[in-house]
Amino acid sequence: MRFFVPFDARTPNTRLAPVLDEGERFAFARAMCLDVLAALADAGHDAVVLSTAKFECDAPVRVDSRSLSVAVNAALEETTVPVGVVMADLPLVTAAVFEKLTAPDADVVIAPGLGGGTNAFVTRHSDFQVDYHDGSYQKHRQIVNDCDLALATVDSFRLAVDIDDPTDIAETLIHSDETAAAWLRSVGFELDTQNGRTVAVRS
Amino acid sequence: MRFFVPFDARTPNTRLAPVLDEGERFAFARAMCLDVLAALADAGHDAVVLSTAKFECDAPVRVDSRSLSVAVNAALEETTVPVGVVMADLPLVTAAVFEKLTAPDADVVIAPGLGGGTNAFVTRHSDFQVDYHDGSYQKHRQIVNDCDLALATVDSFRLAVDIDDPTDIAETLIHSDETAAAWLRSVGFELDTQNGRTVAVRS
Repeated sequence: MRFFVPFDARTPNTRLAPVLDEGERFAFARAMCLDVLAALADAGHDAVVLSTAKFECDAPVRVDSRSLSVAVNAALEETTVPVGVVMADLPLVTAAVFEKLTAPDADVVIAPGLGGGTNAFVTRHSDFQVDYHDGSYQKHRQIVNDCDLALATVDSFRLAVDIDDPTDIAETLIHSDETAAAWLRSVGFELDTQNGRTVAVRS
Repeated sequence: MRFFVPFDARTPNTRLAPVLDEGERFAFARAMCLDVLAALADAGHDAVVLSTAKFECDAPVRVDSRSLSVAVNAALEETTVPVGVVMADLPLVTAAVFEKLTAPDADVVIAPGLGGGTNAFVTRHSDFQVDYHDGSYQKHRQIVNDCDLALATVDSFRLAVDIDDPTDIAETLIHSDETAAAWLRSVGFELDTQNGRTVAVRS
């Protein structure tokens, strides 16, 4: 299946500014994107990065500097269904995760993210369009309903954990040994335990 | 399968103090526990609440005021395997989630929680013991390894989301309509969107 992977090549991961400088934020965002692309390749899917600016990687890159929703809807419109979209900041994903996402025989399959986002979806119907701003998981459910389509959701921790805030970084180190986790270790991040919770600290 | 459900009936959910008073924290903790018990019952499992103090609910309650790890290990020791343990602060769980947890044919099956915890496990081997403090997911993996047992992990968002902090409350309202979600709505919580993230606010 064709999967688009939206990637912000201009100002990625701004909320990680307290722990990573601008160059590091780009390097970490790139590493996470490479992990997503590797998992898609392992699962036999065909990935296209939908980048806000020029970006080099092994997958084809389509540059679209418009807002996320506009760029994704334009890409969906030009693509034959079934088609999927998966965010680039999901370093825990594996090939098995994409098998779960593509397995349900529903018109639209959504994987919710923490905080009410939509971290990935597959659509088998060309009527489905995205609206990523302000609580997209519930908006997308409503759109599926309004289009009179059948919805399935996927219960996946690995698809739900997007790395937005410094507190999310620990999840990468706990649950992955791939490119993003290796990059974090290379710049000095390691796991520590504070008040019973495992956190990432930088030495 | 027998499942123990540890429940702190004395000082539950202390980290929710910024948004719930003491009586409300107990009421919310109880509502979450009832959701876990209902999901276990729906899945055909046999639940025993392992409470730090007297607690009334439809399931049998075993009172053990010792620390979580000591109480769980004592319960495991007196029970024939297979046996499971699932935390009481997981209001998103459903019967389907317990089917995922009990499906893998490994000696020990662990469902990680956000922040490096162990939100649920099933053990089919009496050698496995718990150690919940300070990053229990990695500790439990090590214990399984040290006992030379086979480990499986479960990729479940619904098992990973425990309600520890005020920011977690939104997940209950987004993904559940059961007892805990209804209780939150009854005391004035509702969803709002702030900076693109869906949050729970109290009116």
